[in-house]
Amino acid sequence: MSKKSFPLSRVYRLLEPGPVVLVTTAHKGKANVMPLSWHMMMEFEPPLVGMLLSGRNYSFELLTASRECVINIPTVELAKSVVACGNCTGRDRDKFAAFGLTPKYVDGVAPPLIEECYASLACKIADTRMMNKYNLCVLEVTRAWKDPTVKQARTLHHEGMGNFMVAGERIKLASKMK
Amino acid sequence: MSKKSFPLSRVYRLLEPGPVVLVTTAHKGKANVMPLSWHMMMEFEPPLVGMLLSGRNYSFELLTASRECVINIPTVELAKSVVACGNCTGRDRDKFAAFGLTPKYVDGVAPPLIEECYASLACKIADTRMMNKYNLCVLEVTRAWKDPTVKQARTLHHEGMGNFMVAGERIKLASKMK
Repeated sequence: MSKKSFPLSRVYRLLEPGPVVLVTTAHKGKANVMPLSWHMMMEFEPPLVGMLLSGRNYSFELLTASRECVINIPTVELAKSVVACGNCTGRDRDKFAAFGLTPKYVDGVAPPLIEECYASLACKIADTRMMNKYNLCVLEVTRAWKDPTVKQARTLHHEGMGNFMVAGERIKLASKMK
Repeated sequence: MSKKSFPLSRVYRLLEPGPVVLVTTAHKGKANVMPLSWHMMMEFEPPLVGMLLSGRNYSFELLTASRECVINIPTVELAKSVVACGNCTGRDRDKFAAFGLTPKYVDGVAPPLIEECYASLACKIADTRMMNKYNLCVLEVTRAWKDPTVKQARTLHHEGMGNFMVAGERIKLASKMK
């Protein structure tokens, strides 16, 4: 795996810009993957992430059963796979094999990391109190990996109906904000 | 104002890509503005938005007192103003005047819209149950405006420590997702 361990204190820098993510889940020998954009940072360290996932999704079943998931961040090269993953259910097919995503299992984490994604965040459910009303769960990121050679990731940002913005140029300003 | 009324059913297309926003608040004749990136869509229509705002911020006081805010979306031309707004408090100064942001008041909405932002979303607090533990409030977007001439907004996406990604090229894929 080209990804290396990444400090938990910097995880917010990956999710805060709002990329589409590929969430992997696994339970009792079944694994699944789905794209998702409704997430937000909720705490720096340990990193907490709010994630909203419809109860109709197969991934929701696996997530609530195993209480863990991996948030993988794809770049534009994976755009077709991302959309393909969202256009069907994993209930009756292996989406990894179907759409060219390589599951990579690491010790102590049930869902697979996606080899082709430049960053992966292993998460455990930290709070389910908003699940009934909003399908919102609070995740704690327990381990993170990132490909150190990727500097300005060309992430995908969903604008509805299959329209995506691709991450563009970077600018830096003098800021006191973390 | 160059912004026109924008359908609530499409609000998710503005916030889902994860732009930095400028949140305006007002209470008893005082108004304030601050940049914020920790937000997420939670429902399509009526649009619900989760927003996390530290209890230490002056804006938090105004928001909880008035129970409303306006989420304004800036583009890269406003980058310096965005960072300047985040580098100081509005407790003892008028940040609008200081950083070249024009407050625009509309009937029935207490906080001002920001004239220079291409989109503005008037919000009311819908749920405060996650406020104590997470500083997370659920907002309902009640009215929205967008400049119809802005097609591919060059929004700002925070990557930490004053580093921003600027929205780049757009691509479209055949998707069944909303």
